[in-house]
Amino acid sequence: MLAEAASPLGIETVVLAERPDDAACPPAGAVVLGSPTSATDLAALAARADAVTFDHEQVGLAEVAALEAAGHAVRPGAATLELAVDKARCRERLAAAEIPVPAFVVLKSPGLSPAERLGALESFADEHGWPLVLKAARGGYDGKGVWFVAGPGEAQAVAEEVASTGVDLVVEERVAIEAELAVLVCRRPGGEAVVWPTVETTQSGGVCRELLVPSRIDPAVLASASEVARRVAEKARAVGVLAVELFVNGGRVLVNELAARPHNSGHWTIEGSVTSQFENHLRAVLDLPLGDTSLNAPAVATVNVFGGSDAGDPRARVGGALAVEGAHVHLYGKVPRPGRKLGHVTVTGHDSDGVRARAWAAARALGTPEAEGTGARAGEDSGVDP
Amino acid sequence: MLAEAASPLGIETVVLAERPDDAACPPAGAVVLGSPTSATDLAALAARADAVTFDHEQVGLAEVAALEAAGHAVRPGAATLELAVDKARCRERLAAAEIPVPAFVVLKSPGLSPAERLGALESFADEHGWPLVLKAARGGYDGKGVWFVAGPGEAQAVAEEVASTGVDLVVEERVAIEAELAVLVCRRPGGEAVVWPTVETTQSGGVCRELLVPSRIDPAVLASASEVARRVAEKARAVGVLAVELFVNGGRVLVNELAARPHNSGHWTIEGSVTSQFENHLRAVLDLPLGDTSLNAPAVATVNVFGGSDAGDPRARVGGALAVEGAHVHLYGKVPRPGRKLGHVTVTGHDSDGVRARAWAAARALGTPEAEGTGARAGEDSGVDP
Repeated sequence: MLAEAASPLGIETVVLAERPDDAACPPAGAVVLGSPTSATDLAALAARADAVTFDHEQVGLAEVAALEAAGHAVRPGAATLELAVDKARCRERLAAAEIPVPAFVVLKSPGLSPAERLGALESFADEHGWPLVLKAARGGYDGKGVWFVAGPGEAQAVAEEVASTGVDLVVEERVAIEAELAVLVCRRPGGEAVVWPTVETTQSGGVCRELLVPSRIDPAVLASASEVARRVAEKARAVGVLAVELFVNGGRVLVNELAARPHNSGHWTIEGSVTSQFENHLRAVLDLPLGDTSLNAPAVATVNVFGGSDAGDPRARVGGALAVEGAHVHLYGKVPRPGRKLGHVTVTGHDSDGVRARAWAAARALGTPEAEGTGARAGEDSGVDP
Repeated sequence: MLAEAASPLGIETVVLAERPDDAACPPAGAVVLGSPTSATDLAALAARADAVTFDHEQVGLAEVAALEAAGHAVRPGAATLELAVDKARCRERLAAAEIPVPAFVVLKSPGLSPAERLGALESFADEHGWPLVLKAARGGYDGKGVWFVAGPGEAQAVAEEVASTGVDLVVEERVAIEAELAVLVCRRPGGEAVVWPTVETTQSGGVCRELLVPSRIDPAVLASASEVARRVAEKARAVGVLAVELFVNGGRVLVNELAARPHNSGHWTIEGSVTSQFENHLRAVLDLPLGDTSLNAPAVATVNVFGGSDAGDPRARVGGALAVEGAHVHLYGKVPRPGRKLGHVTVTGHDSDGVRARAWAAARALGTPEAEGTGARAGEDSGVDP
């Protein structure tokens, strides 16, 4: 989607991909076959580019830092990427900058004995109560690498398993989540930044099911989320899009995770905002003026399309979705599997209820199963985990 | 741009192109190298497609008709394409269907002597007065193949030149053009059709410089244009987008030209309408439900980007255009030459004057020279020829 946004601006793209059938290859002007963790392959890419950027985080941080050190314009840089890649560094740096985050402690992988780890878990639970949330600092996504543990036995088992992989463990308080928000910030190298309106997200089973803009929750909370996200982008010295995911708890916002790239929580911007996250990311990375982030309509809803239990192909069902008024269908060309994210649908319109209903109707027409907990309104406990 | 609109809908595209460096190739899923006037190449394309459509009119009508006869879904079909390709057949068929067109007569290329041709020209001028407008029935575009002739000597010279190429000549009254309009209709094979709001176009030197939606002229005239265009699409049995270009003269509309494909006069729909002309064309061609053609904003302006006298590359100037609030820049990747159309800029907003000013500012920043006659308002004689 970045390459598609580049073409009308006359920006040429070269993509580093591991396979020629990677979905990023066809829209790109040229392809370098290789690995994003190989210094050689990254250098081959950088040699052909005025600026290097990312559409995922499965990159070698040391190798990216080496590119920067060699004088290439790497945007965002390795210091920003690390906050998106490593949950432990992210929590520590944000807390040090007095950004609100859930209470946490980091248990380093080497250096602690099992008894010391158990002691640290129990001591944290003494202060914050059970259950706790345990997160592997690296490698998790879409709910994977996150555990809710009810007591010390369960906690220790997870902690030892994670430690055995050499990855640090983040231990967190279990926050009662009243709502989940996402704020997309886009920042140029010199610090100029724009922010899109705060997005209300609905998660189920650890994956995002639905986005709604503007959110229906207290405007003061939304403004606070927006302000916190701006500060995060500044502290992270982000360049390009930084997606900041937040929890709402007792009228305060707490930063959960960061993505230092265009993000699923910003897919609504393609039709819903004057400038899409993809175009502004490119503009920022090339240090061009940033575009207007206003809404194109009073309400915008995006519902993700997942494979249903029949593993049917949503492409064969697109007519049903297009029969829904104003439905913008985006299929990603992936092989359908039950539960796999295969695309999204965006609807713009006059009111939240209307756009949500239409976006869901189109997503269901494409085979998306109804999600438990979707439709939960702010103020209800969604029963959904981070 | 059709291939780009196809991808998110899960529609696979195969493009027939004469050269692998054709701008249509990179976004397409597959390429058949060949000519759109070769029966063999068209058959090779059709063999790989559920439906065949067009993004230009330089096709072999007989070869396209043969594809249809062989049972392929060719949309639009040869009978519709002929109206866009042949100005003589277009005028005759529209007049027969009582669609308002300028007064005209067709002079067949073989079969008339020079004296008979001169007699026909003088007889037409006796009724409609000099000057006359002469048009080669085929092969013209962007003002080429169109002549304004002040008297019989000039007229005869042009008529003989056109006759010598074997092409019919359309002789027309010189209409005082108060405004020029374009209406985009999109029609499914079964007859279901949608119409976008009528576009006011500004021409200079035979090429379109600017589009404005909604038009500032009398709403009754706009409604009449829309109604006429619907009838044209029905009579033409169009499938996909049909762009109908009209003159306004004395409160009436007259059909000038047709394009049976997504057209420059519809580029504003990418950002300005809920559904773009490209997406609705694909939906129609595959007989899928058509999308909403409402405006995304109260006013939309598109200004075409032309090469300036310095032949500078607009890509090097994109920063200046992006500094204009809300400017959507579309560059076509062509080699810059003075006067060559290199792209367009669209701006959406609250009022006509504001969006026009911003779109022009961005187009000028990209190197577009100021156009004589642009900025002319409805009711003024634009001084511009069809």
